[in-house]
Amino acid sequence: MRIDQRALDQLRDIKITRNYTRYAEGSVLIEFGHTKVLCTASIDHSVPRFLKGQGQGWVTAEYGMLPRSTHTRSDREAARGKQSGRTQEIQRLIGRSLRAMIDLKKLGEHTINIDCDVIQADGGTRTASITGAAVALVDAVNVLIEQKKIKQDPLKGLIAAVSVGIFQDQALLDLCYEEDSNCQTDLNVVMTQAGEFIEIQGTAEDKPFTREQCNSMLQLAEQGIKELIQKQKTALDW
Amino acid sequence: MRIDQRALDQLRDIKITRNYTRYAEGSVLIEFGHTKVLCTASIDHSVPRFLKGQGQGWVTAEYGMLPRSTHTRSDREAARGKQSGRTQEIQRLIGRSLRAMIDLKKLGEHTINIDCDVIQADGGTRTASITGAAVALVDAVNVLIEQKKIKQDPLKGLIAAVSVGIFQDQALLDLCYEEDSNCQTDLNVVMTQAGEFIEIQGTAEDKPFTREQCNSMLQLAEQGIKELIQKQKTALDW
Amino acid sequence: MRIDQRALDQLRDIKITRNYTRYAEGSVLIEFGHTKVLCTASIDHSVPRFLKGQGQGWVTAEYGMLPRSTHTRSDREAARGKQSGRTQEIQRLIGRSLRAMIDLKKLGEHTINIDCDVIQADGGTRTASITGAAVALVDAVNVLIEQKKIKQDPLKGLIAAVSVGIFQDQALLDLCYEEDSNCQTDLNVVMTQAGEFIEIQGTAEDKPFTREQCNSMLQLAEQGIKELIQKQKTALDW
Amino acid sequence: MRIDQRALDQLRDIKITRNYTRYAEGSVLIEFGHTKVLCTASIDHSVPRFLKGQGQGWVTAEYGMLPRSTHTRSDREAARGKQSGRTQEIQRLIGRSLRAMIDLKKLGEHTINIDCDVIQADGGTRTASITGAAVALVDAVNVLIEQKKIKQDPLKGLIAAVSVGIFQDQALLDLCYEEDSNCQTDLNVVMTQAGEFIEIQGTAEDKPFTREQCNSMLQLAEQGIKELIQKQKTALDW
Amino acid sequence: MRIDQRALDQLRDIKITRNYTRYAEGSVLIEFGHTKVLCTASIDHSVPRFLKGQGQGWVTAEYGMLPRSTHTRSDREAARGKQSGRTQEIQRLIGRSLRAMIDLKKLGEHTINIDCDVIQADGGTRTASITGAAVALVDAVNVLIEQKKIKQDPLKGLIAAVSVGIFQDQALLDLCYEEDSNCQTDLNVVMTQAGEFIEIQGTAEDKPFTREQCNSMLQLAEQGIKELIQKQKTALDW
Amino acid sequence: MRIDQRALDQLRDIKITRNYTRYAEGSVLIEFGHTKVLCTASIDHSVPRFLKGQGQGWVTAEYGMLPRSTHTRSDREAARGKQSGRTQEIQRLIGRSLRAMIDLKKLGEHTINIDCDVIQADGGTRTASITGAAVALVDAVNVLIEQKKIKQDPLKGLIAAVSVGIFQDQALLDLCYEEDSNCQTDLNVVMTQAGEFIEIQGTAEDKPFTREQCNSMLQLAEQGIKELIQKQKTALDW
Repeated sequence: MRIDQRALDQLRDIKITRNYTRYAEGSVLIEFGHTKVLCTASIDHSVPRFLKGQGQGWVTAEYGMLPRSTHTRSDREAARGKQSGRTQEIQRLIGRSLRAMIDLKKLGEHTINIDCDVIQADGGTRTASITGAAVALVDAVNVLIEQKKIKQDPLKGLIAAVSVGIFQDQALLDLCYEEDSNCQTDLNVVMTQAGEFIEIQGTAEDKPFTREQCNSMLQLAEQGIKELIQKQKTALDW
Repeated sequence: MRIDQRALDQLRDIKITRNYTRYAEGSVLIEFGHTKVLCTASIDHSVPRFLKGQGQGWVTAEYGMLPRSTHTRSDREAARGKQSGRTQEIQRLIGRSLRAMIDLKKLGEHTINIDCDVIQADGGTRTASITGAAVALVDAVNVLIEQKKIKQDPLKGLIAAVSVGIFQDQALLDLCYEEDSNCQTDLNVVMTQAGEFIEIQGTAEDKPFTREQCNSMLQLAEQGIKELIQKQKTALDW
Repeated sequence: MRIDQRALDQLRDIKITRNYTRYAEGSVLIEFGHTKVLCTASIDHSVPRFLKGQGQGWVTAEYGMLPRSTHTRSDREAARGKQSGRTQEIQRLIGRSLRAMIDLKKLGEHTINIDCDVIQADGGTRTASITGAAVALVDAVNVLIEQKKIKQDPLKGLIAAVSVGIFQDQALLDLCYEEDSNCQTDLNVVMTQAGEFIEIQGTAEDKPFTREQCNSMLQLAEQGIKELIQKQKTALDW
Repeated sequence: MRIDQRALDQLRDIKITRNYTRYAEGSVLIEFGHTKVLCTASIDHSVPRFLKGQGQGWVTAEYGMLPRSTHTRSDREAARGKQSGRTQEIQRLIGRSLRAMIDLKKLGEHTINIDCDVIQADGGTRTASITGAAVALVDAVNVLIEQKKIKQDPLKGLIAAVSVGIFQDQALLDLCYEEDSNCQTDLNVVMTQAGEFIEIQGTAEDKPFTREQCNSMLQLAEQGIKELIQKQKTALDW
Repeated sequence: MRIDQRALDQLRDIKITRNYTRYAEGSVLIEFGHTKVLCTASIDHSVPRFLKGQGQGWVTAEYGMLPRSTHTRSDREAARGKQSGRTQEIQRLIGRSLRAMIDLKKLGEHTINIDCDVIQADGGTRTASITGAAVALVDAVNVLIEQKKIKQDPLKGLIAAVSVGIFQDQALLDLCYEEDSNCQTDLNVVMTQAGEFIEIQGTAEDKPFTREQCNSMLQLAEQGIKELIQKQKTALDW
Repeated sequence: MRIDQRALDQLRDIKITRNYTRYAEGSVLIEFGHTKVLCTASIDHSVPRFLKGQGQGWVTAEYGMLPRSTHTRSDREAARGKQSGRTQEIQRLIGRSLRAMIDLKKLGEHTINIDCDVIQADGGTRTASITGAAVALVDAVNVLIEQKKIKQDPLKGLIAAVSVGIFQDQALLDLCYEEDSNCQTDLNVVMTQAGEFIEIQGTAEDKPFTREQCNSMLQLAEQGIKELIQKQKTALDW
């Protein structure tokens, strides 16, 4: 039995609230249990310098945690004057994952800026961010289509992400903070709607993991992501 | 008649939600119409270097806007590597104002860190921040008292803040973004529960203002702050 | 009787020396008693990016204190790698105030950069900066006119600034450092030649202030600024 | 047939040169074909603040590329004033991986600083860094033992790393730069001498990858790492 | 005949004004013609970390130019967030030179911070800084002696500095800005009262210089520095 | 007899290895005894902003030390977020020196970026950098000529650099680290192939030096540089 009474292969309560704020073209509050992330997608009608004139678009992401989203207060990165290595690692992961949803050629010379800001953190903030931002990105893409800024739908399909881990030699789905801090291995998986992999990032925190453990974790992740994509579809009225 | 149908001396809808997030000792979501600010108060059982060993505490504040809290996306300050002058000006104002609520000697060698993070911005974010943070600060002080970390209640009373302005030569209470961007003069006022001034910051944006206009604005502010303090009391079950 | 033997409503000795350095289009050393600030106005025949092509000009200001302008040495901001919040707050105030003197449309696509560098600090450096920079700005505007870079005089009139405060429950004009550090309330006021307000910034340092005290301070400020504008006119041979 | 005539499951020429520079306690030049990385291990007889007084040691890593180690010159990170997200991601990976080799309790209150500086880059710099640094770390640990600074050998065993990828739907071992830039998927794997996983980081660059492809890649990686660990042993005269 | 009518071996008008500002323990305005530098010496009763507990003192220097001390305005280094390479080079030179005047053992655990701020720049700001700061340093040392903070006089003697150059194949003493920008070679020399060298820094700007030219320049520098030391003595009433 | 058995006027073993890395247009490993510096020259077909459209080229240099090139590990400048004053001073010196080798007009609108990275440091890294970079620069210039990017050879001739010093009142050529740290005076000299001076930078570390000592040092430097230029010619097959 897990800390929070879940079965080994059970997701936390997932809530996806679209149009959470007023101004962004896509604005989603996603909750994985106590983890709450506000994901916005903002359209910019230009592209970064390295893409100028190539007739394609871009999707990029930034990530931040409110200083007291965590159990003890963390420094505000804006006040310290730099983003931590962890923050940069996460926002690069979010950006890469979301670009896999989009045909950048069909997006035209537009940039969609994703912001994932963690309101409350209880483990899994990067996977919640990706899962929520995917929905916000769909909403922003639809704004571009409605405004006739683009002609073809650049969306390839949905993606979602979940963490899995090995805790006391058992594979667990969707770790909460306390599980995450105590597990032997932590694996974050991003997959497409079609059941293929976009990203796999596994780290042995305490002791190395075996090929069998790797397989069990990937198995659990596949199942969890399938459920998450179902939640996204429901939220999107698909 | 105002843009949003309010009377000249009418506040926007004010909502104060305590315990908005789980971990902070004080956590308040304050809404002034569409403006929404999450104000948390975090206790740190030490004081800044310049106060070490003096037997007194400290209250300090940081302020930030989520990049897409605004009509168009702003740069993320953490990514740019520095806080803007505006941000620093606002967080200094919030910190000074809140210190006026507290007898720092009675607080003992504890620091209360206030974080005001703007989720959605429609004008008046600094006054909403101060008004919400005052409530979060009361909650955090009560935690210290309950945990017997301090013996005497350091609270001197509540404070609240509101903006007033001159728009088309008339004084208005609690400007929304559109009024704020077009007004001649913008004045932010912070007052105590006892009806005395903590801060007055007035700026002629478009044309200078007269002594009479100053008086009308201060009059409106006094009235608005009286109402806001009533809302704070209701939220605190006082 | 005040620390330095002045009457409550008496300014310190004010000296305004034009053409203090050789290269700047406007260069003024202003002294408010022991406070000495070098204010230069430098013409740049372009405008910031956000104003490009709009046919209007800009006035902006920077402020700094020499490390040993103060009683004890402060860190050099250039060596620390950032300007303090106080510095940014002050330079934003100076810039806003001076823009109120100028019709930016008539200035054409020119920028006037104001630098206020404090040589010696004994309280009131921001008000001395504004008062001195106003004169330097007039000189720089006249250079533009003489060089036929602009056709119409963009000057709307002079502005000046002074601090007032409450010390031992009495209102004082033009606080020196020792008064400033010990006063209950400190209010900085910027006014036009026509006796209207540009900026009011009041802070209760020690205890809140009342509406009557606010009125007494504004009264004193009006009188002090009238005298300062007379000094500016004399310096300018008007 | 591959670009550089290798078989699909063939490593590039691997060279490991110990004592490459004179001063570091461990100093290894590792070559994976044209990729050359200088890995040094430096002993510091203290620990970071967060570990003070806990009777355990630390291993940490920094990574850098010489500006012209690459085909076209990159900016010098020291001159730009910050390390890129990629650099931080890589140095975090190296540090985590190497800590898995060491029983930090047995290391005592010593820190071993790993520096991986890329002299020439032709793909696989992070995996070469880990593989070379593991050898440098063994040398530094032995210095501590010889100098009787520690009593028990903290070494748990060797680790090594290799990249694998999918290129034209085939799994390849140890990608060179040209393969890396054109592959569909890139997977970096870190394993122990005992054949267990420390890190798996897979990214679909161009199109998602399947479970079968993931398995083929992990298979290749296991085999490659076995060979690399043999090379490390030879270099260490084990 | 030179641009400003001086003989080849003639210094500009030199003025040394002690006690130029009120608060610093040493405060000197030095003028080399139109070049004006404010040099302050500030006492700090501690030493940098690397000297803690060694029973010796330290002398260090910082240098800055007011943004409009120059013919055209330069960026403010505090606003740009870093000191230029030139600034750092100069302040390192000033610090090294002044340490040569002082027996650091006899100074005890005190630091003297020198600040050289250029009010107006017409060439030779680094040599004027050193020459003026030497006088400010003597004044600060005397404060320490008068306050009985140190027992023995740590002063070894005076130092001064001057620039020399080759212009149209002739050696010139004490270059003004226009000469400096057009000369073939620029050499800055720092010497002791006893006629020995502390620093020589020569740079061929336009074409290389010969051994004979080097000798002529050193000859001129010796003579100029002798005169400067005489001016320092007069200013110090020695 | 010197620490390392050399005669007073004897250089350390000098090795110059061209084409040390694969990608740079010029790539030289230079060794002065145990000091090893990798000098690369990279061609960029554009010029810095301040030279745009003037039909001339630019040569600039950056310098860095690998963190463990030294006896004890130094901080990585990229991680600290800024280059030290020493680094900036050295890279400015290298850049100025190399520009003296080149007729920038004949170089056309191309920039050559020199990177000097110290692999191992045993004194004299700046003089080794200049001497090695001169050879790399020749190679890069020849690439431009071969590729017909420029028509005339912009090379004016070779330059080289060496350090000299006074140790126990005797002049020494080419100081190693231990001599450098203990010498009274340290003088770095850069000269042309024609025996003329580009740069002289002498610093009295411990006690001032006399004119005679200056002459002895310059004499030794001339001789050493003559030998270094011979080594460069041999390396270049001239």
